[in-house]
Amino acid sequence: MEQLLKQLEAYTSLTESEQKVLEDALFKRNYSKNEMIFTEGKISDEIYFVTKGCVRLFYNVDGNDKTAFFYTEGQFICAGESYTYNVPAIENYQALEETEIYVFTKTMIENLIGGFPKLEIIARVATENELITYQKVLASFITKTAEERYQDLLKTKGDLVQRVPQQYIASFLGVSPETLSRIKARIYKKEHS
Amino acid sequence: MEQLLKQLEAYTSLTESEQKVLEDALFKRNYSKNEMIFTEGKISDEIYFVTKGCVRLFYNVDGNDKTAFFYTEGQFICAGESYTYNVPAIENYQALEETEIYVFTKTMIENLIGGFPKLEIIARVATENELITYQKVLASFITKTAEERYQDLLKTKGDLVQRVPQQYIASFLGVSPETLSRIKARIYKKEHS
Repeated sequence: MEQLLKQLEAYTSLTESEQKVLEDALFKRNYSKNEMIFTEGKISDEIYFVTKGCVRLFYNVDGNDKTAFFYTEGQFICAGESYTYNVPAIENYQALEETEIYVFTKTMIENLIGGFPKLEIIARVATENELITYQKVLASFITKTAEERYQDLLKTKGDLVQRVPQQYIASFLGVSPETLSRIKARIYKKEHS
Repeated sequence: MEQLLKQLEAYTSLTESEQKVLEDALFKRNYSKNEMIFTEGKISDEIYFVTKGCVRLFYNVDGNDKTAFFYTEGQFICAGESYTYNVPAIENYQALEETEIYVFTKTMIENLIGGFPKLEIIARVATENELITYQKVLASFITKTAEERYQDLLKTKGDLVQRVPQQYIASFLGVSPETLSRIKARIYKKEHS
């Protein structure tokens, strides 16, 4: 919980009584490596906040999974359309390591928000952050090559590249594991020549 | 302004005095067909709300423009990372028809938000809607073929396909105008066989 409150400080500062309200309302879930957190087809009524570990977002395309993104500590996760409009989600979220998340349920948010205006701010900032993430991911999909996207990943989430199985990095880049190996070799060569 | 207030009702209901505050703070801009609304490289300190027309989001890739999305009436537009973190934007927004937008400046929002909690709600709902849009666009980029994406566009923004120059639709789908023609012919044939 301390971890959560510390990370939420990045969103807005909370008084002790506000912290207490959150402590009473939120609950924690732990996942082991490779465990599914949420599976497509269900209606999402929860928002997750990652306090430890790494979560993979993937879509299912005719039985093949396609990695869209990796979430790490301090990030909110929400299957937006399903959560907002109560339609079945197309998102799959999987823990890639021992992962700890805190859960904001829809009911909890709706009950609290009237008497807790800062929760509205947290919700807005969290949504903004998710939006910026998606804007960047979409822009990079459209404008960059797989090699450029790999270099961006090294710059912005360098530790991730070590932590995550390479087939998921390859899937995120939209290339085969063999092509990823060639990309890595090329970058290594450039850096050491 | 009436148009704006009516469309904002989709976000939250406003009292007359709240409407008055917005009327005094917001201003309108009109763009002619093909005029640029915002160009990459600048820092964005405005959020736009489209009341009439159509706006194309595109990225510049080595001098070629790549269409990412089309905004129409009732949608907010924000270059999120630039607006939030004061970094140069990579987004370009262009009016594709006679377009009318209302402008929320950052200063205006910061001045008003303390005494106007509903603006916080509008901001959150607007951000949520943008997020859902991006989540859907990204998912469709990752999981669908150009033909499937074209059919989605027909379903969700059918009028747009008539309104927008076909080279931008092709660019949005990531195919050449010739391939788009073939896709259309295929769909026409399926529907009429």
